[in-house]
Amino acid sequence: MKKFLDDDFMLAGEAAHELYEEVCDLPIFDYHCHLSPKEIYEDRRFKNIGELWLEADHYKWRLMRQAGIDEKYITGDAPYKEKFFKFAEAAPLFAGNPVYHWIHLELKKYFGIADPLCADTAQEIWDETLEQMSEDAFSARTLIKGSGVDTVVTTDDPTSDLKYHKLLSGEESFYVLPCFRADRALGVEKYDFDAYVRELERVCGKAIGSFDALVAALNDRLDYFESMGCPAMDVSFENFPAESGDVKIADIAFKKARSRERLTGCEIGHFKAALLKALAAQMMKRDMVMQLHTGVIRNVNGKAFRAFGADSGIDSIGAGADIAAASRLLDAINSESGLPKTIVYTLNRASYYPLATLLGDFAGETRGSVQLGAAWWFMDSADGIREQLKIYANTLGLGTFNGMLTDSRSFTSYARHDYFRRILCSVVGKWIDKGEYPGGDMAKDLVRDICYYNARDFFGRTTK
Amino acid sequence: MKKFLDDDFMLAGEAAHELYEEVCDLPIFDYHCHLSPKEIYEDRRFKNIGELWLEADHYKWRLMRQAGIDEKYITGDAPYKEKFFKFAEAAPLFAGNPVYHWIHLELKKYFGIADPLCADTAQEIWDETLEQMSEDAFSARTLIKGSGVDTVVTTDDPTSDLKYHKLLSGEESFYVLPCFRADRALGVEKYDFDAYVRELERVCGKAIGSFDALVAALNDRLDYFESMGCPAMDVSFENFPAESGDVKIADIAFKKARSRERLTGCEIGHFKAALLKALAAQMMKRDMVMQLHTGVIRNVNGKAFRAFGADSGIDSIGAGADIAAASRLLDAINSESGLPKTIVYTLNRASYYPLATLLGDFAGETRGSVQLGAAWWFMDSADGIREQLKIYANTLGLGTFNGMLTDSRSFTSYARHDYFRRILCSVVGKWIDKGEYPGGDMAKDLVRDICYYNARDFFGRTTK
Amino acid sequence: MKKFLDDDFMLAGEAAHELYEEVCDLPIFDYHCHLSPKEIYEDRRFKNIGELWLEADHYKWRLMRQAGIDEKYITGDAPYKEKFFKFAEAAPLFAGNPVYHWIHLELKKYFGIADPLCADTAQEIWDETLEQMSEDAFSARTLIKGSGVDTVVTTDDPTSDLKYHKLLSGEESFYVLPCFRADRALGVEKYDFDAYVRELERVCGKAIGSFDALVAALNDRLDYFESMGCPAMDVSFENFPAESGDVKIADIAFKKARSRERLTGCEIGHFKAALLKALAAQMMKRDMVMQLHTGVIRNVNGKAFRAFGADSGIDSIGAGADIAAASRLLDAINSESGLPKTIVYTLNRASYYPLATLLGDFAGETRGSVQLGAAWWFMDSADGIREQLKIYANTLGLGTFNGMLTDSRSFTSYARHDYFRRILCSVVGKWIDKGEYPGGDMAKDLVRDICYYNARDFFGRTTK
Repeated sequence: MKKFLDDDFMLAGEAAHELYEEVCDLPIFDYHCHLSPKEIYEDRRFKNIGELWLEADHYKWRLMRQAGIDEKYITGDAPYKEKFFKFAEAAPLFAGNPVYHWIHLELKKYFGIADPLCADTAQEIWDETLEQMSEDAFSARTLIKGSGVDTVVTTDDPTSDLKYHKLLSGEESFYVLPCFRADRALGVEKYDFDAYVRELERVCGKAIGSFDALVAALNDRLDYFESMGCPAMDVSFENFPAESGDVKIADIAFKKARSRERLTGCEIGHFKAALLKALAAQMMKRDMVMQLHTGVIRNVNGKAFRAFGADSGIDSIGAGADIAAASRLLDAINSESGLPKTIVYTLNRASYYPLATLLGDFAGETRGSVQLGAAWWFMDSADGIREQLKIYANTLGLGTFNGMLTDSRSFTSYARHDYFRRILCSVVGKWIDKGEYPGGDMAKDLVRDICYYNARDFFGRTTK
Repeated sequence: MKKFLDDDFMLAGEAAHELYEEVCDLPIFDYHCHLSPKEIYEDRRFKNIGELWLEADHYKWRLMRQAGIDEKYITGDAPYKEKFFKFAEAAPLFAGNPVYHWIHLELKKYFGIADPLCADTAQEIWDETLEQMSEDAFSARTLIKGSGVDTVVTTDDPTSDLKYHKLLSGEESFYVLPCFRADRALGVEKYDFDAYVRELERVCGKAIGSFDALVAALNDRLDYFESMGCPAMDVSFENFPAESGDVKIADIAFKKARSRERLTGCEIGHFKAALLKALAAQMMKRDMVMQLHTGVIRNVNGKAFRAFGADSGIDSIGAGADIAAASRLLDAINSESGLPKTIVYTLNRASYYPLATLLGDFAGETRGSVQLGAAWWFMDSADGIREQLKIYANTLGLGTFNGMLTDSRSFTSYARHDYFRRILCSVVGKWIDKGEYPGGDMAKDLVRDICYYNARDFFGRTTK
Repeated sequence: MKKFLDDDFMLAGEAAHELYEEVCDLPIFDYHCHLSPKEIYEDRRFKNIGELWLEADHYKWRLMRQAGIDEKYITGDAPYKEKFFKFAEAAPLFAGNPVYHWIHLELKKYFGIADPLCADTAQEIWDETLEQMSEDAFSARTLIKGSGVDTVVTTDDPTSDLKYHKLLSGEESFYVLPCFRADRALGVEKYDFDAYVRELERVCGKAIGSFDALVAALNDRLDYFESMGCPAMDVSFENFPAESGDVKIADIAFKKARSRERLTGCEIGHFKAALLKALAAQMMKRDMVMQLHTGVIRNVNGKAFRAFGADSGIDSIGAGADIAAASRLLDAINSESGLPKTIVYTLNRASYYPLATLLGDFAGETRGSVQLGAAWWFMDSADGIREQLKIYANTLGLGTFNGMLTDSRSFTSYARHDYFRRILCSVVGKWIDKGEYPGGDMAKDLVRDICYYNARDFFGRTTK
């Protein structure tokens, strides 16, 4: 029996330790996160662990609700100290949950605390963290630097002026790059689509009266984003559109949406497919990366959504990917413009194998050109990471994998990279321990590539 | 190499043993089973192990068929001794199957026999069990008491007079409570729906001429069930209805069904959704539990169904849950009446993660208010239990889980609780052994809650 | 830490070794492969390991593309030596992939080489294998004999004259039997259906003017195949048809297809269901085996398909099986003609449990009469094999399983049987090590049956 949270945490087997030594200090190339460039620029300081942990972390909010904690201590107006105590008291219930692992990794990494969080330890941990946080160490930039981060790729709407990215270009220890997140442009069925296009018109300084004009406007913004170092686009949708992406129907859909008419499912599908193809063609032309986040249903609980808004812990895993639709879309993109470097993420594990093999149908030209995205959101557990790694290995060649991203709103979430590296080293280490893969330099190169170099090269960057 | 079926059976690792010590003698709160209250009341005695095991156990029947055994020895009229010998001879083929584990746990627990069942041991085991069964130990009540059962929740049709529950209210060592199983009321598309409603009219003593009257009649029955200590309703269906549950359409469907007209799929869907919402509202009002059993296709083999009837081993796992439909239904219930304490069971493991996260979107108010149901029926294997536990831990906070139920027709199936407890302790014990969770009281409380206290509290009961 | 690729490769635990001793030298009954009877008859000799490995292995081609290797070295005209060096260089990226395991098992088994393939070892391995291949050992028949193969069942179109099977009937050490692969007859929606029926007319020497005539023609061919020792039919399709298989609509579909008219989805479905039922009835009558390969989408990448044709590494895993459709089809077959011995393979692991339990609804008459097919194609990894074995054990009784097939185009793929046997022995051995199954003869019989005897008996053959 090992001590709780000892140095071997998540490191199973002999070879795993040796591999971990190789990667534990590699820089972090965080190619997808939700950090605020503003908070980075302004070097926001966190006052206490309640604020740091519970201000915006909907992973924790969900668990607190299931523990029966009153909403007042979750999204409500209770002081952060009380929220933290409620969370601490419930923490033992979260055995095996990645949140349980992350909070303890963070306590250890950022505060040197190795006690399990619970009612008994809450006061001590509060006091100790509060004292440490009164010093300068707990500001946004200090946390990023201290975590060995090389590059942060944020998530930005096409209308963004990227003001803080510009201001951060002088930052010496790490890059902060924008990612072109086109969800709102794709959201032709949403109530606020017309308002969004008007915003886009304002930013671009010209009228957007047709689907083609929309594509042109987005290309203008892509020019700007690219000039700011943007390496990728990103969109999130529940499932792949089954339609072929007929531009004429997309245009009808666009115009109806602008005059707030109700669209048919077919029109919506054609619009989405057409816009995805247009964006993919741009990625191909610009040698940028296309990222697709699929399989999520957002804001499921209507009552809670009306009370707390989006990103409040009321999203869940959707149905598996429509594989026939996905295969038609990727094939159409590949035939028409060539498929750019592509990462497809899914929350639905039943779609891992179909999507990974589908992507493999389009592999070629460059190393690791298609990727089954890292274990994401609800799947970002030790179990989920292990499964994604094994499926990647079984289908696409593990050595081509881009490795981990944080996908987080928190400045201490870099502990998740350590978590990933430990698990990766254990997966590969076990193969070595069992004689299924050679140890030595071959394995070291493999994990080093996955932990840093593959992602850096894939996104076309150099180390800062 | 360990001895077959030794005391460590299914107990892996150091910490597992310590945890198991804590829970092995806890009472059993069996919140869902198919035991017959009549047999309990009459204290039915089993004459031999053939009768005990093979009279009604369709898990075993399926395996016997795949072993090539003639139907005569399965559901046919061969004597139980011959049936038992056929089963014994085939048993080695069932390596790794939960039935293989259960029969040996039962032999050990109830008869003190630790030999593997096979052709060579059949005679000896037959003789030994026959001798033991000639004494009083093998009656329904003795088996329940001897298994440490605190509460048995049976499965009862709303039309039931609960006569045996009443008669059993004097039983001193355990409760026998009814559960309101509303499948037949929900079965508007079934050929016998009208006959069922007539039965309900008779029991309620009033005409049921509309959907609203049906709901009212069910509420009358709920009043009665509640007065008899009923803690929960339960329904089983293949998939969630995609319709919104319009009461007007439900009423049309009801009336067409009563005049034996053919319903459209849409009418059926509205009826089911409307009735589920009405029942959910009652659960909320009465602070009772809503249980949904999903993902099963019943009586698939028509030829066998015509020959042997229902529950004869010809049911199988259906398609994954329609997650979009499920999310709309739960959201509608939550908005209209509030979501009661809810357990959703599914046979389709691909739906575990989507359903668990969907339920989590509605967590709140009380601890463990939403539950991904325990591994059920075909999934009730060691592999299936481990997977359900890990997914529960990864999504909902394992410490809130209600733990095991037997879902069984057999009085020796309580061995499955021991099976579950061993597996649970091994899952949590491994985390402790690897330093991922603290041992000591925290872990002991966790497993104790899951093995007994959570379920007892969830169903609003006290220990007998 | 064990040495790479030592004798314990994939053998985990104490009991596994003992079991493996029992089965490692058993003959191989390869009941489904894509070897060329012509190449077997002509005893084709392979000149070098590049040709042996890279001429037709689309598993390897996919991995090479994802490694960023130019198509010239994959399907292109580069010399085999250069192709081999490119593959060798990329090999370390394929950690954990079954191809990585297979190539090293083949190097060890057929060449006595235990070095990991990589850029550093490529020259040495090329030289050593080249020298060994200059001798007689690397011909088709020598490889088959040397691999201990008892029976090879190839994959043959109904129009085949089975010329090479006839010529091979004198082969003394192994049988080469045909399998009736009716994909093209089922492909009523394909552009070449009419051409195919004309070919069938030519072979049968009579006009085929209706659906009934098609069935009759196929029965003629089945007579011939059966006379040549054919033990089974086989078809592959993406999903089960949802239609009932109305013969009148099938006839309309057939006639439209012959006059190259466009069919509706419904007509296609009825045709397929009707033909599957007709073929199943023949299997039943002839006591032959029905094999269904489901869940694959073929030739997804249109650009690559136009360039390289079929079987070039551009197929992938399709959506899960339509379980409702599958259950209706199997039930209809069972009611109308009786279900023959049936194996259903699927690429979609989410369908393993539903299909295995569905098949179990129809078990009976003979031992192992229904089978969840062995882990297939993309699922043929150590992880995939383990999962299939455990699900088979949990649902159908592992002792009834037919075990492994190669499904391969390569004469050194028999290493995959060794791979399977090691994994099987480890799965069962672990149960023994943990006291969940008795060791000794019971376990030995179990694995012996699965490794050879079950398949031999299932396909109604004797050992050569």
